[in-house]
Amino acid sequence: MAALRSYVNGDWHAPVEDGVPLHDAVTGEEVARISSAGVDMAAALAHGRERGGPALAELTFHQRAALLKSLASYLLEHREELYALSARTGATLGDSKFDVDGGIGVLFGYSSKGRREMPNDTVYVDGAVEPLGKGGTFLGQHVCTPLSGVAVQINAFNFPVWGPLEKFAPAFLAGVPSLIKPASQTAYLTHRLVELMIGSGLLPEGSLQLICGSVGDLFEHLTDQDLVSFTGSAATGQRLRAHPVVAANSVRFNVEADSLNCSILGPDAEPGSAEFDLFVKQLVTEMTVKAGQKCTAIRRALVPAGRMDDVVAAAKARLEKVVVGNPNSSGVRMGALASLEQREEVRRSLKALLEAGTLVHGDPDHVEVVDADAERGAFLSPMLVRCDDPDQPQPHEVEAFGPVSTLMPYENAAHAVDLARRGKGSLVGSVVTADPAFAREVVLGAASRHGRMLVLNSDNAKESTGHGSPLPALVHGGPGRAGGGEEMGGIRGVLHHMQRTAVQADPATLTAITGQWVTGSPRNITDVHPFRKHLEDLRVGDTVVAGPRRVTLEDVEHFAEFTGDTFYAHTDEEAASANPFFDGRVAHGYLVVSFAAGLFVDPDPGPVLANYGLENLRFLTPTYPGDEITVTMTAKRITPRVGAEHGEVRWDVDVTNQDGDSVAKYDVLTLVAKRPDTQE
Amino acid sequence: MAALRSYVNGDWHAPVEDGVPLHDAVTGEEVARISSAGVDMAAALAHGRERGGPALAELTFHQRAALLKSLASYLLEHREELYALSARTGATLGDSKFDVDGGIGVLFGYSSKGRREMPNDTVYVDGAVEPLGKGGTFLGQHVCTPLSGVAVQINAFNFPVWGPLEKFAPAFLAGVPSLIKPASQTAYLTHRLVELMIGSGLLPEGSLQLICGSVGDLFEHLTDQDLVSFTGSAATGQRLRAHPVVAANSVRFNVEADSLNCSILGPDAEPGSAEFDLFVKQLVTEMTVKAGQKCTAIRRALVPAGRMDDVVAAAKARLEKVVVGNPNSSGVRMGALASLEQREEVRRSLKALLEAGTLVHGDPDHVEVVDADAERGAFLSPMLVRCDDPDQPQPHEVEAFGPVSTLMPYENAAHAVDLARRGKGSLVGSVVTADPAFAREVVLGAASRHGRMLVLNSDNAKESTGHGSPLPALVHGGPGRAGGGEEMGGIRGVLHHMQRTAVQADPATLTAITGQWVTGSPRNITDVHPFRKHLEDLRVGDTVVAGPRRVTLEDVEHFAEFTGDTFYAHTDEEAASANPFFDGRVAHGYLVVSFAAGLFVDPDPGPVLANYGLENLRFLTPTYPGDEITVTMTAKRITPRVGAEHGEVRWDVDVTNQDGDSVAKYDVLTLVAKRPDTQE
Repeated sequence: MAALRSYVNGDWHAPVEDGVPLHDAVTGEEVARISSAGVDMAAALAHGRERGGPALAELTFHQRAALLKSLASYLLEHREELYALSARTGATLGDSKFDVDGGIGVLFGYSSKGRREMPNDTVYVDGAVEPLGKGGTFLGQHVCTPLSGVAVQINAFNFPVWGPLEKFAPAFLAGVPSLIKPASQTAYLTHRLVELMIGSGLLPEGSLQLICGSVGDLFEHLTDQDLVSFTGSAATGQRLRAHPVVAANSVRFNVEADSLNCSILGPDAEPGSAEFDLFVKQLVTEMTVKAGQKCTAIRRALVPAGRMDDVVAAAKARLEKVVVGNPNSSGVRMGALASLEQREEVRRSLKALLEAGTLVHGDPDHVEVVDADAERGAFLSPMLVRCDDPDQPQPHEVEAFGPVSTLMPYENAAHAVDLARRGKGSLVGSVVTADPAFAREVVLGAASRHGRMLVLNSDNAKESTGHGSPLPALVHGGPGRAGGGEEMGGIRGVLHHMQRTAVQADPATLTAITGQWVTGSPRNITDVHPFRKHLEDLRVGDTVVAGPRRVTLEDVEHFAEFTGDTFYAHTDEEAASANPFFDGRVAHGYLVVSFAAGLFVDPDPGPVLANYGLENLRFLTPTYPGDEITVTMTAKRITPRVGAEHGEVRWDVDVTNQDGDSVAKYDVLTLVAKRPDTQE
Repeated sequence: MAALRSYVNGDWHAPVEDGVPLHDAVTGEEVARISSAGVDMAAALAHGRERGGPALAELTFHQRAALLKSLASYLLEHREELYALSARTGATLGDSKFDVDGGIGVLFGYSSKGRREMPNDTVYVDGAVEPLGKGGTFLGQHVCTPLSGVAVQINAFNFPVWGPLEKFAPAFLAGVPSLIKPASQTAYLTHRLVELMIGSGLLPEGSLQLICGSVGDLFEHLTDQDLVSFTGSAATGQRLRAHPVVAANSVRFNVEADSLNCSILGPDAEPGSAEFDLFVKQLVTEMTVKAGQKCTAIRRALVPAGRMDDVVAAAKARLEKVVVGNPNSSGVRMGALASLEQREEVRRSLKALLEAGTLVHGDPDHVEVVDADAERGAFLSPMLVRCDDPDQPQPHEVEAFGPVSTLMPYENAAHAVDLARRGKGSLVGSVVTADPAFAREVVLGAASRHGRMLVLNSDNAKESTGHGSPLPALVHGGPGRAGGGEEMGGIRGVLHHMQRTAVQADPATLTAITGQWVTGSPRNITDVHPFRKHLEDLRVGDTVVAGPRRVTLEDVEHFAEFTGDTFYAHTDEEAASANPFFDGRVAHGYLVVSFAAGLFVDPDPGPVLANYGLENLRFLTPTYPGDEITVTMTAKRITPRVGAEHGEVRWDVDVTNQDGDSVAKYDVLTLVAKRPDTQE
């Protein structure tokens, strides 16, 4: 059987030794061999830093996002062969879709987030400008730039496609090259995934590397600019995190470890209610999807003390319908565990759990299987443990990483919170309830020990993605036992790969550094109205100053009558004077911004296509009848859209009165056409 | 001499042994003794968790912010006695102000940030609502809740006041109790600070504890909910971070270690220029403030190759004027190091630096001192090392934690970036230049190895807070050698003490959990217009629906004429039709929001005092003449102001047309009065 190759240093490398055999989880046949012998780990890291990083740095966030989308589409076309290999890991077609389609979904998700929430630039501006002096000559602004190292991504065996892609996508978007190291058991599937990714020709050389087999001396070569994202057992995570080179160089180290996630049935959910059924259905789903080999699966099911019997009965009824066997056979609902070793591991853990409870469904030593050999394949029946004393320690400490859950009773909401927290840090917890007050108490009470909490009920069941599904827009990771890490969470996951730097400078220099105009920077007032410039011709700082226009009492009265906005502050001198913020009748804020638009607009058809929004509008000084307003409008940020005929321009608008005081400040958002000759 | 007491478990505890003597840095006299013998570390942690945490949880962010402000004012009144004790650490009055006033400034800064940027609530909502399904029944939202443990704060000797306060303020605002452990050398000053803080009576019991002396077995008792913030030597930081309990429980561990910070003179700054003088002046300041015992001080001064002689001459001229001696004596510019041990340490490091360069100013073995004994006190002269070969490793690796800097030449911007990065992670770097392009190249090139970067020039010099000053609004900490941590940074520093949890729920439940109305949640439409309700009577979800109003062509034409906004899309049917986004003439966005205000407003005097702003306005569907618009306005977030007669109400506004499509969505920000009987 051929050994899996590693893709490092720009080429595929076969190991220099035979390697360890990997077995089909269903048939026990050898699928491949694995070894990283002969791989030059230092060279791989150097290649990522010296080729991958600089190549990615040439691309803007939007260009990287576009590549992620193309890559996702490419993988979508090839997913059938990934499904086929996935079946050999013991996965049913449903499990495979969870892994493969889920992973591709992360690529799409990050592509979309990157285009919508990041600039078309290589520097990410984080948070607001911080004024550091009263004169406005000294400002602070945080920027994020990519770490100039390699993202070493150590993945678990249970999601050979989703796992690597979930780590790769935010790293790529950040501009940091990835070095993927899959868990051996299912590495043949990740190997094929990376072959496809490299074969797509979409990724800059050095931005993706693969090591099949052990990491060897890789950790010896890590620097302060590299980072490690680890998913797997807590013990291994702790050991690697304590590596002296990691400690000495403060290498960023993100751990995502299995945890004792709980699901809580609300007291409102009586048997027969929609929520009761949702709870039981979700519990059985989480026990059986991927044969329970999910770090997010429900390990502890907490139900009101009086409902234990009802839940046991309902769960058993569902579990009895679960057909175990060859995942390629129709009707099979649950496949095999990833390996015989995993099965042994689960049996050992179950034994510990049974010190605290009794098995109410399943048998660790016997399972009926369809179209397969129950001993050669790593099959196991789903097993439900009942533990009537939730003060027993085992259910809160022992994780059986397979189709196993423990059912426990709780007394009231505070008790449920207490039990949930005994997991000492979980990736996810869920509450199945239609009672918002119960949901609030449990979620806020248990939140500090959870990375994610799901409230499930009949209002959201149809759209709910379920307890066990991390989503690219939401944080994945949890405190304590779950490793203390944080992955994904939308752009947060991108920023984990970047260094946040507080920049302090004068406005002009800050504008030069961030590419975003800040107040106090020079304004470029030219003969040509900036609305007459196409996107490529417009420059940050381009400005139009217009006015003054006197706002008369007649204007205010007319506007009140015309719009119907007869708020007393605009119409009743005496009442307005009694208002703590006004000295008399004031112009409507909407009148001020409308007049401002009348001043700054260039009316003829031109590159500015539409005003699609407004941000951060603040009315700072009242405008009284007789005041004269002037508007100053400056191009603040220019965002060309990849593949579109236009881009977005954000304008800084400052409306001032005859005393030079700012009356209103805001950002106007416009769509501006590219030059016809450059439209892509 | 009395031993310093620890404040734990609700009381002051004297050690059960004599303790180690602490010496006056200037006279060598014994100031106090220190030992933590007899302190029950487990009980201290438990007290913080069981008393401090719950007491803080009773307060909203705004209430905690108000306490920080009161505390800051209280300490301001007592700063003279802190200055007096500070002088015994070797600090001049200027140094003491940097430490004491700087620390008080952090309290004020966090108080202000807390009130302006956090809700008057106990839950912090982080980021936008994430739609997780097309039907809008399933949403995601990140919330941050305080860790339910203790913030163990291990401080360095050099800032006995600023150091503890800089860690305490964000922890307190987050709702996490602090346990302060000062470095022994200067612990008597921190001890007095904590005596004042406790004596103020402002802080809830358990929210602040102090351990004078070693941490003993404290680390054995840390849980996943505790966190450690360490400032000090990299070696100690690494050792503590690798503690097995820290690793096993994924205890959050923030390290801020000394680093080899650089300052770069721009090629534009010729001798005689303002920037040249600023560079030299800043260099000398950073060498001498706190006798160079600042983790942010300039250790590496990089200047254009041809400017070495000029900079040496100018720096020497300034350094010669630095008077060293008893910090209580007038005219003394630089005091003593914190201890004789520190002086020996600096001498050792200097020896290593001199393997790579020559001493051009100062003498490690001799210094003239005013009003003090140069040997009994830990005095040292400022010392400037010249190293003409920047490829020597020592200047980039050896930190002399005292009044020592090394001057090196660079060739061009890329070379300066390369040299800056050789520090392998710094807290801060500065660039002194009036050339924005040079600033951009250096800052973006070196950013991934810096937590903060300052650009200094004549435009901002007057307001600049300088290379060495961390500010509460900006991130403090750096990658790699600097420890890989992040402190302060405004609200970011608060969130470091909280767990971010992704909550998934239906809209109504999400609203119940966050206290912030989200689209899809029930709207409460009552007979009373919500504008007629005082702040305490208003509820999240209270709604007014108004309209429809038909928008006529005459309205559009009149609005164009009245405001002057004659943009072709509103005035020219043919040109508007040619616009890719419109099918013909459209109403102005400003007309739509003005009419919407006319619909939703309740005109008579009442609790709603003013509309002070607008956020997130998006025009989603064009409004064509003849369309009828309806407005739905719902109270989204209610923020009472502590100590004010009003609060802020954010309203969700949705303007829809006759087809039910959203025309515009935005948030309206208003000030709403409290009931007269409840105004504080």
